[in-house]
Amino acid sequence: MMRKLTGEAVGSFLLFATVVGSGIMAENLAGGNVAVALLGNTIATGAMLFVLITMLGPVSGAHFNPAVTLVMRLRGEVTTRQGLAYVLAQMAGGILGVWAVHVMFGLPVLELSTKARHGMGQWVSETIATFGLLLTILGTVKHRHVWVPPSVAFYIVAAYWFTSSTSFANPAITIARSLSNSFAGIAPADVPAFIAAQILGALAAHFTAFALFPDED
Amino acid sequence: MMRKLTGEAVGSFLLFATVVGSGIMAENLAGGNVAVALLGNTIATGAMLFVLITMLGPVSGAHFNPAVTLVMRLRGEVTTRQGLAYVLAQMAGGILGVWAVHVMFGLPVLELSTKARHGMGQWVSETIATFGLLLTILGTVKHRHVWVPPSVAFYIVAAYWFTSSTSFANPAITIARSLSNSFAGIAPADVPAFIAAQILGALAAHFTAFALFPDED
Amino acid sequence: MMRKLTGEAVGSFLLFATVVGSGIMAENLAGGNVAVALLGNTIATGAMLFVLITMLGPVSGAHFNPAVTLVMRLRGEVTTRQGLAYVLAQMAGGILGVWAVHVMFGLPVLELSTKARHGMGQWVSETIATFGLLLTILGTVKHRHVWVPPSVAFYIVAAYWFTSSTSFANPAITIARSLSNSFAGIAPADVPAFIAAQILGALAAHFTAFALFPDED
Amino acid sequence: MMRKLTGEAVGSFLLFATVVGSGIMAENLAGGNVAVALLGNTIATGAMLFVLITMLGPVSGAHFNPAVTLVMRLRGEVTTRQGLAYVLAQMAGGILGVWAVHVMFGLPVLELSTKARHGMGQWVSETIATFGLLLTILGTVKHRHVWVPPSVAFYIVAAYWFTSSTSFANPAITIARSLSNSFAGIAPADVPAFIAAQILGALAAHFTAFALFPDED
Repeated sequence: MMRKLTGEAVGSFLLFATVVGSGIMAENLAGGNVAVALLGNTIATGAMLFVLITMLGPVSGAHFNPAVTLVMRLRGEVTTRQGLAYVLAQMAGGILGVWAVHVMFGLPVLELSTKARHGMGQWVSETIATFGLLLTILGTVKHRHVWVPPSVAFYIVAAYWFTSSTSFANPAITIARSLSNSFAGIAPADVPAFIAAQILGALAAHFTAFALFPDED
Repeated sequence: MMRKLTGEAVGSFLLFATVVGSGIMAENLAGGNVAVALLGNTIATGAMLFVLITMLGPVSGAHFNPAVTLVMRLRGEVTTRQGLAYVLAQMAGGILGVWAVHVMFGLPVLELSTKARHGMGQWVSETIATFGLLLTILGTVKHRHVWVPPSVAFYIVAAYWFTSSTSFANPAITIARSLSNSFAGIAPADVPAFIAAQILGALAAHFTAFALFPDED
Repeated sequence: MMRKLTGEAVGSFLLFATVVGSGIMAENLAGGNVAVALLGNTIATGAMLFVLITMLGPVSGAHFNPAVTLVMRLRGEVTTRQGLAYVLAQMAGGILGVWAVHVMFGLPVLELSTKARHGMGQWVSETIATFGLLLTILGTVKHRHVWVPPSVAFYIVAAYWFTSSTSFANPAITIARSLSNSFAGIAPADVPAFIAAQILGALAAHFTAFALFPDED
Repeated sequence: MMRKLTGEAVGSFLLFATVVGSGIMAENLAGGNVAVALLGNTIATGAMLFVLITMLGPVSGAHFNPAVTLVMRLRGEVTTRQGLAYVLAQMAGGILGVWAVHVMFGLPVLELSTKARHGMGQWVSETIATFGLLLTILGTVKHRHVWVPPSVAFYIVAAYWFTSSTSFANPAITIARSLSNSFAGIAPADVPAFIAAQILGALAAHFTAFALFPDED
């Protein structure tokens, strides 16, 4: 179990560092062209997801996301106790990743985002984004196991662009991003509604998967 | 059959939402640099195609496209009745996807595109684009089955750039895109000629495949 | 043999159309930012190469390039007569592809490029570019056969950027590009030196492969 | 052994030429938009890494990096003598690659970079970047061997964006880049600290891998 938790922590460290760090790099370099900044942010995030799921999938299952851990709990893949430990490891590793990015880019380590992200459009975005992410995982993990890493990576690449919220789709990353006042940030006050929308989307995928992939259970 | 139709509807929902949503996002952010907007639109569409064909190929065959369903009908893979049900599921799921995008981006749900897309160059583009798409599918689906998802995804990535119409190549998506007055839209009056050109290209691929891939039949 | 030649012609049609068409599209949209235009050109070309080699590799070997056919002749994979027929099919299909692009984009079908591309830097670029392309093919085609399509596609993606000539690396495409006065063009007077440099690079790869991949023969 | 050293030299030639050449091309074309330049540099580097590891992995192990060779020495995969010969081949091939790029782009062959790259943020970046690179290699090389080329390529794609140093992560490439006064350069005086940080990151990955991938040893 310690090995699994180390896997979740190390993976979340590198994933969250990539999401926030590539956002800062992109914003620094893009000279105000936000579409170019989002391209850099997208390519870096998708690439890192592929690597981490390939490398750490056999170690911990490569959740890096409490919404994934929740659905795996509902499907009986992890116990409640294991699930809570997973979420703690994701939060600890991920927040350290964000702080490491602040050191790398010479920013204050401790900060809070002031970037407002709320409203019906954003919340529908997070619900749909997380629905699609979990559906992708549940639809590939058993019968197309070898294609899980590119499927999850490419799903997030698409979701960064087709949702108005740029698809956080991950409660731990939502909290971690509230601790960085940069391109990828979110104001702390807007975090709870994002997480609620994400959990709703994850549950919707959980039930849709019973209809779409019945032999998966 | 209900499971297959659900697969076509859910897949078309996510695919059409990605095509239209990433177009809106890209146009919003690109500050007038249309090439950058098309890059975002391209990467998102290709990525989502890979995911959906990987995940839903085993469920419904992952058509999401009446031109594909037509050729599969000609090859005896589906019955006429099944084919019509597929097309209805694609239309219903896909239009819902476009409307969901309008909610996400705070646009009016019901709108019509005013973007003119016609002329000989556009029609030749749609014929060639759909010819290449169907040839890609027919040339990989039996003997290189595992490479269908990246082949179709990468074909569309290329076709967004080498055709002057940016390759709709799909009658259902053409209709759905007429219902969104955004980057990816098409004026309703221009839809019928696009669909005719697409069907022509699909039939050309159907016959070319007999010469190129004879043992496929 | 007719099937193989059809494969070479159809593949060259789509490949050359992609190289020239995505160049025109990119230049039209990029508003003078040539790096963005080259990104679009690069992504489209790499994506189409993956598709065509996956789909037509089992049909014709997916040369689409007289430099490849020459090396395959030297290695005894094709006869002289077959090789000449291959080159004719590549030229015919490829030039038709360029002309189809001109129709799609509303340009004069018949035109000649005025874009100067010469000098020692350009010629060294074409030699190194073609050397790397053939080495990639010879280094993957026997023992890593399944990875030939992404390897060739990704090689060209890199070579568009690391050579000052943007890596034509193909005598047939060099001739075809002289027939289009657009982003991807080359003045006819500059064609012979490019082809000579490409043949030199191909021969260098042919001999290097004996040292690097001895069990390949 | 001569074949392995040839593999390391040829691979380092093409890899270092790609890193530096695509940087020069991108800077020349991007008109001051550094994010677009970094996109071109990123895509070219990732693509070439995939090709070279696929093609030369079976020949030499495809290190192209003294930090990789060091860790392989610690794990007993190569002898000290072999390791030193590998590093010499990497340096010789790589520096030739940089000089070839200068010829291709019409620059003076011999030059020194004046680009300052130092400070705590840069050094932490190089340590984390090299840590992640080696962890990726050690985490995939035995049990997910077939996925090593895309994993390493995608890791570097992400690391170009999430670290403030754009992830050199390779002592030989750090020295070679000091010999080019261009986008990818680094002032010679800043090289030693980069190399020290890279070795620190590599050693950290070496020990972390024992905890994460215990059955790897």
